[in-house]
Formats: sequence, C-alpha cells, structure tokens
Amino acid sequence: MGSGMGKILLNKQGIEIVGAICSTERKNGLDLGEVLETDQLGITCSNEPEEVLSSTPADILLLSTLSFTRDNYPQILQALGYDLNIITIAEEMAYPAVNEPELTARMHAAAQKRGVTILGTGINPGFVLDTLILVLTGACANVERISASRVNDLSPFGPTVMRTQGVGTTVEEFEAGLKAGEIVGHVGFKESISMIADSLGWELDQIEESREPIVSSCSRQTEHISVEPGMVAGCRHTARGIREGEVIITLEHPQQIHPQLEGVETGDYITIAGTPEIEMSITPEIPGGIGTMAVAVNMIPHVLEASAGLVTMKDLPLPRAIMGDIKEQLSEMRGNRK
Amino acid sequence: MGSGMGKILLNKQGIEIVGAICSTERKNGLDLGEVLETDQLGITCSNEPEEVLSSTPADILLLSTLSFTRDNYPQILQALGYDLNIITIAEEMAYPAVNEPELTARMHAAAQKRGVTILGTGINPGFVLDTLILVLTGACANVERISASRVNDLSPFGPTVMRTQGVGTTVEEFEAGLKAGEIVGHVGFKESISMIADSLGWELDQIEESREPIVSSCSRQTEHISVEPGMVAGCRHTARGIREGEVIITLEHPQQIHPQLEGVETGDYITIAGTPEIEMSITPEIPGGIGTMAVAVNMIPHVLEASAGLVTMKDLPLPRAIMGDIKEQLSEMRGNRK
Repeated sequence: MGSGMGKILLNKQGIEIVGAICSTERKNGLDLGEVLETDQLGITCSNEPEEVLSSTPADILLLSTLSFTRDNYPQILQALGYDLNIITIAEEMAYPAVNEPELTARMHAAAQKRGVTILGTGINPGFVLDTLILVLTGACANVERISASRVNDLSPFGPTVMRTQGVGTTVEEFEAGLKAGEIVGHVGFKESISMIADSLGWELDQIEESREPIVSSCSRQTEHISVEPGMVAGCRHTARGIREGEVIITLEHPQQIHPQLEGVETGDYITIAGTPEIEMSITPEIPGGIGTMAVAVNMIPHVLEASAGLVTMKDLPLPRAIMGDIKEQLSEMRGNRK
Repeated sequence: MGSGMGKILLNKQGIEIVGAICSTERKNGLDLGEVLETDQLGITCSNEPEEVLSSTPADILLLSTLSFTRDNYPQILQALGYDLNIITIAEEMAYPAVNEPELTARMHAAAQKRGVTILGTGINPGFVLDTLILVLTGACANVERISASRVNDLSPFGPTVMRTQGVGTTVEEFEAGLKAGEIVGHVGFKESISMIADSLGWELDQIEESREPIVSSCSRQTEHISVEPGMVAGCRHTARGIREGEVIITLEHPQQIHPQLEGVETGDYITIAGTPEIEMSITPEIPGGIGTMAVAVNMIPHVLEASAGLVTMKDLPLPRAIMGDIKEQLSEMRGNRK
C-alpha cells in the first residue's frame, strides 16, 4: 500500500516524496525509484524509522503498516515527535475512539501540543460504508434506517486474505477458525457504525457483529485456492447498530472468491429508509486497494489545513481528487477558510 | 420551500423558529402554525422583512425567495445587518463567484465584518451534480472525465415549471421560447461545473450549455398540460466544461413529464472515468423539493460552526442528516474542531 501511494504521489504536482520507511529487509537500502518501478529518485528506503524521521524534515507521513490502533500508536507517537502530520490507513484509526478511547485521547492531546493533525482513512472504513452514507443522508429530512452492503471479489488476493476470510475451508474449519480468531472478516464495522451514529446524533445501545461462511454450491478456483461445492468461498460479515431494541444501521460485507459464479454482482449498495428514500449503487464496487491509496493521498491537503489534533472523515471538508497542484489546492482551501 | 423547511424544523430538537417572513399578501398576518398546517405557534407571518428582522434576534436565516445572486443580494445584505448567518437556496448562490464575482466579494467581506457565514445550497446545484461528484472523486487516484445526468419527472409540477421548461410547446415555439429567454432549463450548471473544476484543480477554458427540446413520440398528459406526439415533453439541458479543447465535465439534466412512457428511468447517474472508474446510480432520483429543503436544513450546524464569510459546499464538513439535538451536534462539531 505504501508503494502504491508512492506511485500516485509521483504523478501529483506540488508535492515531493522526501523519505521512505520500509518494513522489509528486502527493500532496505534500495533506491525508492527501484521499489516504485521508476527512475532513481535519490531516496534510500530504510527499515530504521528513527533514522529516516530524524534526518528528513517533512510535512506529512503516510502510514500503512497495521490494522489496529494499539499497534499504530507507538509509530504515531514517534512521528509526532518530529512534528509530522499523519494519515494512516489502519482500519481502527478511521474512528479510533470506539475501541481505544484512552489512546485516542492521548494521540489527540499529543497532536494538539505539536500543532499537527492525525487522520485515519481508507476505502472501508473511511469512505464507502461511512463517509458516503453520511453524505447521502445530507439530502434527507428524516432517516429511519440505513442499510448498506459492500460486495466484492477476493479472487485477486493472496494466501493471507484467503486465510483471514476462511476461503477454502470446510464449514467446520470455518467455525473453528472464527473461534480461534484466525478468521476475522472485515476490520472496521464498529468504526463505521459509530461514525455514522455519532454524526447523525443517534445514540446506539449496542453494535452486534456476525460472521457466516459463504458456502459454495459450485466449484471455484483461483491461483491460490480451490473451493469445491459445499466448501467455504468466503465470509459474510454483518454488523448492526441497535437503538431501543431496533436495528437502525445494518452494514454487510460479504467477501468471497468469484461471486459472479453464483450470480452475485459485486458493488457498493446503500439504502436509506427515510424522507426521501435513497437507493444508491456503485457497480462494480470501488476497488479496495487503489481506493484506499487514493483516499489517503487525496486527504493530504485537508489534513495539512485542518486544526491540530486527531480528526476523522466527518470533521473535514468533502473529499475530492487532487488533479492540479497541491500547493494551489492548499491555498484555495486556506482562502476559503479565511 | 420556506414552508417545507419550516415543517422539517418543527420536527428537529434543539432549534426553534422565532420568526417568519412571507412574500404573499395571503399569508401576511397568519399564525405560522396555520401556514405549516399545525397548531398555533405564536409567530405571526409578515411580508415586511425589516419589521421581522429588527424585532427578532436569531442565529440564522433560511432564505428561499429567488434564483439569482443579483436578486438575493439586497436581501442578504439586509439580513447581514442583523448579524444573521444565512443559508439560501438561490441556485446561483451555490457558487456565486462564477456569475457575480463582485457581489460575491462584497457579500464575503460584509459577512466577515459581521462575523457570520453565508452558504448557498440545495439539491441541484449544491448536492447531486457537484457535492456528490466531488466526494466520489475522493476515491480516485486520477480523474480523466466526469459525466453525470439527473433524469427527473416534471409531471407533479405546476404551470410555471411547464412554461420555463417548454413542456407542451411545438418545436418552433420551443426554439422561440429559448431565444426570448422564457424557456430557461436548469439554473446552476455553471455553478456546479465551476465548483467541481476549482475543487479538483482543473482550469477550464470554457463552459458551454445547450438546451434541446425533448420531442415526444407518444401522448403524455398531466393535470396542467397535454403533449401530443411531435410536441415537446421537456427540455434536455446539457453543460460541458472544456479544457484544452476536450470536454472533461458533462452534466445533463433532461427534465420532462412522464419520461417512463418512453422507457426512460428517472435517476441520478454519475460516471467518473479515471483510476478507478466509478459508475454510480441513484434510482429513482433524489426528489428535488424535499431534497433541497433537507440539504438546507441539514447544513445549519455546519454554517453556525463555519468561519465567517461566504462559503460553499466544498468548504464545509460532510453533509449529514440531523437526527438528534442540533445543540449536541454543534458542540460535537466544536469539540472536533478544537
């Protein structure tokens, strides 16, 4: 993901990559251009964060290492020590106060003290099942219930994703994998549901999650895995926000290989029951990888212009692509802020 | 529209209607409750703006009178004189600098001096063909072209809309009506296209508009009008943003009665050609009337929390429905702003 964001940044005007931290021994010492499959850039990748941070003055750090706030926390504090603004794609960081209120308060205070901003974002959580839903409710005089589904195809992914989604297991193995915490489904539902509820002013009693095996009735193959009829082709992960005994937010993310083999069309689907009713679909779904990288890069001007502290997508101006000079976009944003 | 927003506000917590200005003699002197078809509210409608403004301390004015900035301008300055924040649904005010740079600068300066904020918004311009497009580009690493279409059904509307869209005319009458400025199509394309281009950082050479008759091949009837085959059922208004000779933004708004009679499904459709490609549809379209009222009401907390001056949708945090207490939403926004 870091390399992907790097490639996007090379095509943007008004922004310069000044340092690169890698996590693998293999990339350590390579010129960043080699890693990004382009000409030499004169930037040496290092797997020693402190070394890069201490020798490289910069405005912002894009962080794409881990999924959980607790694991991101030391890396974020380290970067704050060098007065860096930070955008992280760690799923939990999209709305970290839900699972880690104490660490969130500490990061917020530290960022304020340093006069910089921290944002967690990505395609999901961060965009499809929270930001986009919120925006659509903006056209509603009343909202009764929200349900949304992100239906994707895991076929291009490698062995790690197959394992964490239980692809290729028997139903019994799937259940055992869930219990053992090896099959995890999607990370970010609590964050998305809480962002929606807090933004609308809904107080929830509870957020419930369920993970069910998607049992295949046909044979499905990828480069990495083979699923026979009766076996598990993926994980249907669903989360529900409940208020006064009633489910008012339902988010669903069924992830499987080759969904089209059983007539399932991939897409992002949002239904808002209210006044008016809104039925939105994006088909096929916004792809997860490039989508996450794009959202993270596109929020750079927003984060540079935000007030200091830890913010979330709901606090910032509309996302938008950066097609001109980032410096001009910044000064335009500044102009509008007066 | 004013009455509709009033009805929505009556169902919101933490906000109170304190005054009502009407434009008709008929409503003048009536209790607002009578106008809003509810119990007495103890607020007398008046068609004397100065009288209401001078005797009624308030935080914000919702203004729904006219379409053009030039016509809104004196009303806005009048309200600024009483330190009111203002949300107007005048179409041109969604991005007023395009057509009225000088008046915009004056309103901006006056609002800053008074420490209040002015926003123009609505469903379109203000939401479907600009805000929503911008948000979707937020998931794109690159955007090559944008095209979007808002396909609606004019059947419920009255004689004024039939006249301004040319419904029920012959093709010759339609062309003459266009020339005479009596058939106008949609107001707001320049605003939407400019908001998109400025936000993305695209410099446009030109914005072109065309208005074509939608000639019916069947008989179409409404309460107010009758269209025979060969006659005009509506106006297909299209606008194009051009850069270096290439059309990079196309917005289309074909407005007609009973489009389904010729197999046209109403909806809001957005296509972003880029990386990734995004194909979004909302079917049926978000209804114009309630949509505009809802967006205007939902932006109240945003405007109250914004910095002083004239702002547009692209400058403010994500729109969202107000489902809780507006005062709590305000303090939540304030908390996040630090």
